Amino acid sequence: MSTETTPIVSVVMGSDSDYPVMEEALALLKKFGVPCEAILASAHRSPDRTNRFCADAENRGIRIVIAGAGAAAHLAGVIASQTTLPVIGVPIDSSPLKGLDALLSMVQMPGGVPVATMALGKAGAKNAALFAIRILAMTDVSLKAKLEEYIDEMARDLEERQKTLGK
Amino acid sequence: MSTETTPIVSVVMGSDSDYPVMEEALALLKKFGVPCEAILASAHRSPDRTNRFCADAENRGIRIVIAGAGAAAHLAGVIASQTTLPVIGVPIDSSPLKGLDALLSMVQMPGGVPVATMALGKAGAKNAALFAIRILAMTDVSLKAKLEEYIDEMARDLEERQKTLGK
Amino acid sequence: MSTETTPIVSVVMGSDSDYPVMEEALALLKKFGVPCEAILASAHRSPDRTNRFCADAENRGIRIVIAGAGAAAHLAGVIASQTTLPVIGVPIDSSPLKGLDALLSMVQMPGGVPVATMALGKAGAKNAALFAIRILAMTDVSLKAKLEEYIDEMARDLEERQKTLGK
Amino acid sequence: MSTETTPIVSVVMGSDSDYPVMEEALALLKKFGVPCEAILASAHRSPDRTNRFCADAENRGIRIVIAGAGAAAHLAGVIASQTTLPVIGVPIDSSPLKGLDALLSMVQMPGGVPVATMALGKAGAKNAALFAIRILAMTDVSLKAKLEEYIDEMARDLEERQKTLGK
Amino acid sequence: MSTETTPIVSVVMGSDSDYPVMEEALALLKKFGVPCEAILASAHRSPDRTNRFCADAENRGIRIVIAGAGAAAHLAGVIASQTTLPVIGVPIDSSPLKGLDALLSMVQMPGGVPVATMALGKAGAKNAALFAIRILAMTDVSLKAKLEEYIDEMARDLEERQKTLGK
Amino acid sequence: MSTETTPIVSVVMGSDSDYPVMEEALALLKKFGVPCEAILASAHRSPDRTNRFCADAENRGIRIVIAGAGAAAHLAGVIASQTTLPVIGVPIDSSPLKGLDALLSMVQMPGGVPVATMALGKAGAKNAALFAIRILAMTDVSLKAKLEEYIDEMARDLEERQKTLGK
Amino acid sequence: MSTETTPIVSVVMGSDSDYPVMEEALALLKKFGVPCEAILASAHRSPDRTNRFCADAENRGIRIVIAGAGAAAHLAGVIASQTTLPVIGVPIDSSPLKGLDALLSMVQMPGGVPVATMALGKAGAKNAALFAIRILAMTDVSLKAKLEEYIDEMARDLEERQKTLGK
Amino acid sequence: MSTETTPIVSVVMGSDSDYPVMEEALALLKKFGVPCEAILASAHRSPDRTNRFCADAENRGIRIVIAGAGAAAHLAGVIASQTTLPVIGVPIDSSPLKGLDALLSMVQMPGGVPVATMALGKAGAKNAALFAIRILAMTDVSLKAKLEEYIDEMARDLEERQKTLGK
Repeated sequence: MSTETTPIVSVVMGSDSDYPVMEEALALLKKFGVPCEAILASAHRSPDRTNRFCADAENRGIRIVIAGAGAAAHLAGVIASQTTLPVIGVPIDSSPLKGLDALLSMVQMPGGVPVATMALGKAGAKNAALFAIRILAMTDVSLKAKLEEYIDEMARDLEERQKTLGK
Repeated sequence: MSTETTPIVSVVMGSDSDYPVMEEALALLKKFGVPCEAILASAHRSPDRTNRFCADAENRGIRIVIAGAGAAAHLAGVIASQTTLPVIGVPIDSSPLKGLDALLSMVQMPGGVPVATMALGKAGAKNAALFAIRILAMTDVSLKAKLEEYIDEMARDLEERQKTLGK
Repeated sequence: MSTETTPIVSVVMGSDSDYPVMEEALALLKKFGVPCEAILASAHRSPDRTNRFCADAENRGIRIVIAGAGAAAHLAGVIASQTTLPVIGVPIDSSPLKGLDALLSMVQMPGGVPVATMALGKAGAKNAALFAIRILAMTDVSLKAKLEEYIDEMARDLEERQKTLGK
Repeated sequence: MSTETTPIVSVVMGSDSDYPVMEEALALLKKFGVPCEAILASAHRSPDRTNRFCADAENRGIRIVIAGAGAAAHLAGVIASQTTLPVIGVPIDSSPLKGLDALLSMVQMPGGVPVATMALGKAGAKNAALFAIRILAMTDVSLKAKLEEYIDEMARDLEERQKTLGK
Repeated sequence: MSTETTPIVSVVMGSDSDYPVMEEALALLKKFGVPCEAILASAHRSPDRTNRFCADAENRGIRIVIAGAGAAAHLAGVIASQTTLPVIGVPIDSSPLKGLDALLSMVQMPGGVPVATMALGKAGAKNAALFAIRILAMTDVSLKAKLEEYIDEMARDLEERQKTLGK
Repeated sequence: MSTETTPIVSVVMGSDSDYPVMEEALALLKKFGVPCEAILASAHRSPDRTNRFCADAENRGIRIVIAGAGAAAHLAGVIASQTTLPVIGVPIDSSPLKGLDALLSMVQMPGGVPVATMALGKAGAKNAALFAIRILAMTDVSLKAKLEEYIDEMARDLEERQKTLGK
Repeated sequence: MSTETTPIVSVVMGSDSDYPVMEEALALLKKFGVPCEAILASAHRSPDRTNRFCADAENRGIRIVIAGAGAAAHLAGVIASQTTLPVIGVPIDSSPLKGLDALLSMVQMPGGVPVATMALGKAGAKNAALFAIRILAMTDVSLKAKLEEYIDEMARDLEERQKTLGK
Repeated sequence: MSTETTPIVSVVMGSDSDYPVMEEALALLKKFGVPCEAILASAHRSPDRTNRFCADAENRGIRIVIAGAGAAAHLAGVIASQTTLPVIGVPIDSSPLKGLDALLSMVQMPGGVPVATMALGKAGAKNAALFAIRILAMTDVSLKAKLEEYIDEMARDLEERQKTLGK
């Protein structure tokens, strides 16, 4: 996935089978006009590629990393240990244990190296994008306005749905 | 807890029994020179106080919220739903279920309202501070330098400990 | 959903996707002639709407609230913290963790703010209605008679099914 | 435990080792002036006694039952199946599984027979009393006033504790 | 289900939806020539029927009870508390929690009232029958011979399947 | 442990650290006058000894085996696969996972080879003895009378404890 | 399954229903040119066959055993207790508990008898083969070269997939 | 820890607080005369040091790596992804979740990069050493003889303990 402007949020995933989940983050970032990229890099199956990603990310202009992975989900932790950027993790349900493995592998980071963990699956991917937007909106009033509008829209949508509830 | 300068990170907790855990976050923020405050506010036992906190936080200069809670840990989610600030959650082990309840109550937020969840307990409180620092360091080169020094120090500390390992 | 008489039980849910589960509660309340309403209000995505619901419920004549939600299921707790009405919670299986997240988020309320938690899913929604009826029947002999008849009918139904068991 | 007036809430427990937990419910009921009793009855070790309790409870004036039990915690369910009173359950952590067994045995009741389950342990026992009070307050304005005062007091207590937080 | 001779093993289940699982026990008992019956009785939805079953079972000639139930699976425990017969329990996966609730509700019986718990689902139902047969074979040499033949057959069947493994 | 008469129940355990738990079974069997023995045999650390135990047990007069083990608790299953005696299993909490490992390793036997699993720890050891007694009482009226007396005593004990409850 | 040369890795499974999972190990071993065999042997349903396998394996030239099983997965432990060969275990998701039972039954071996446990299901079967190959490559430079090529290929494959990610 | 001869097994741990657990592995390797070393290297807190360890290990003569870690235990996986040596993992109970987090983070590796996972804690550390010895014994008859003697000794020890069981 290429974007016209230099991406500032990198959405990394350990396998292309994670794309349908992580696409939720990419779609929302684009909707908010945040330049982003989709990167395939596995902590385990392509460690050199992942290490190169970490070494280059900040120089390439990346300001926030969103990392999605399943099972023994080490990707977010590996990236967090090799950059000083905020890393947001999305655990993915891709094993018989229904994602409990990915969640614990991601959230239980030792003191010193934080990973901001979101919910399992698509809800988490969506929230990873929104959390990146909350961070970027701290210094971008235009983005903050869009975020406030998005939040108002969620509430209005619920009011609309009330009208047809159970019908 | 008062600070001389206006706090920019608010460390909120649901009960004063959570203080020994959340103190890890406060201590680290102070070490990095980030103005912070400790606030007691329960999503359940003082909803009005919590709602007032949300209404005022941004105007008071708060830029990031760290929220710690145990059991049915709703505090971080409630704050995230009423502000547009980044909210970092610290689940606390304070029930027979060893914190699994707090972790799931905090991390499994529905799409639309993100909470950046850290590890259970003191490791999580420490990482919540470090994650706030990673965010602030995006636009503060002096803080970024301190963060890099902190990370180097962690690695050097390990090298030192190697010398006496098992002795 | 509107009812001809003023509703006394409010069945609140966090998302319209919860309706097929919560419908079990509504259907049973109607069968017992208890005036009820279906309300869509999310603790996270529409906090103001939820707060308004809490502020108005008792004045509108609501005597008992049934709240259903999935994942980090805070809805019942949020309502319980802002009213003095009995709040009955129905955890819903709507994430990869099969409802364990919703159950723990709902039942593990801190001392001071009770939520009466039922089983996961449709069995829980049905029982939420029956528990509301048990409460109302404390001061309504006609409803109590219907409840006793319902209980007798359950036992008779089992006796009937014995006749064709395995056939 | 005897009370001067006829008890209207019965606090039943499966073992006298559960008393230190269930005492929280008894103490709070007494504080609110709700006549109550403490009954020892095991679903498994004294089924006849439990069945007699169910047969007599309503005639003796009992309006609400609170039942606490650990491990395969059947007590609340057994009582709920033999009376039409509201039954509130308190799961107790008394096995190596830390109360997960008691919680699931109590909350996962089949459709038809509701048990209003509270949190594990003392928080749950306290909330069981408060939930009984919420029910009784539906038709007792004096009790409702006390409940509102209790809730205000919780919030004020938190405000007080803020002053000495971390000191 | 009727049998020509007086049944000595009673296979009880809490719901007719459990029949496809418990049928495994009935089929195996019949294959071994053990007279058996299928009984529908719910601990919660038909407590009187269940109590009558317990009161009569031994007089009717029942020597062993097999009880299958799901969710808050109290049936086996209730029967064990009201008879002195050996009670074998089969937990059934019939809720979102995948049978963990049924397993813990059944196996974690308090000291004093044993339930012999088998595996979840069909494997457990089959083994419940085989365990009943092991008990009956203690005093029945003909049944013991059949059991030994069954066990030999299992091993021979595996040897046969080796020949076509992966083909 | 030696007994004057030939033992008919063998209480086997995988480690002498399991003795304090399994002692509950031995004490209860002795109280009921059931000749028993305590055997140390590990499925993993002494497979030959365990296999010899299985080969000899029935010839030595053993009629029922009670097997206690922790962690990957294979002992009961290994014995059940090599004898036709009823095997009763007691899972023991001896690892960080609090016995969940032992419980699942014991109860989830595949179809064909039953293990009658009891509760974790001392409650389970006690119930293993009582379950063996229920089996033996099927053909021993004197033992049956003792069992009935024991059950009555449990209920009377509860009635006694009611008198001093909370005092 | 027969191979032209004498097998050095034996892939054992407890049931032919495990074949589709264990086939992943067999396919990978063959791809690397490691002579292997597929054996059906159940710890529970064919203990003699399993014991004979253990007694003969080393003499037949087997150097490493891979054992796959589900539920109370004792197979790997039983083999490890009766040989001195390295035993690699693959837990299989074949019960309602989604493989958690198999995983704990396999990995929680007591001190003294190691089983090298892999991930649940096909990923684990594949990794069991790769782990066997890592062991064999310690003394086989040609196999080591193939392993390095395989690892490089994994990384290259990811680079390729990047090109079409999300397309 | 230094050894006179060049180490061939490296025992790596993420924190010096893991030493009391991993010491079990070191002690057993030394008892068997296997040259070994103790290395402190964290996947997260010293990624460069860990990467250097991986780059050098084989050249330094290391043939097998044993890696112990707690919480989000990535160490073994990170090493396995950067060497072709067999990596044996020991999950350590060092968080409120009792090691379930470490176990799942270690064992649920994706297909392609195997980690041979042992039991939690000291039993696992001991077995990691024994598994390394089983591998080395494949090509070292003297070590194999010691291993056989060790296994015989375990069984004899059990026979000895039988004599004083319960005394």
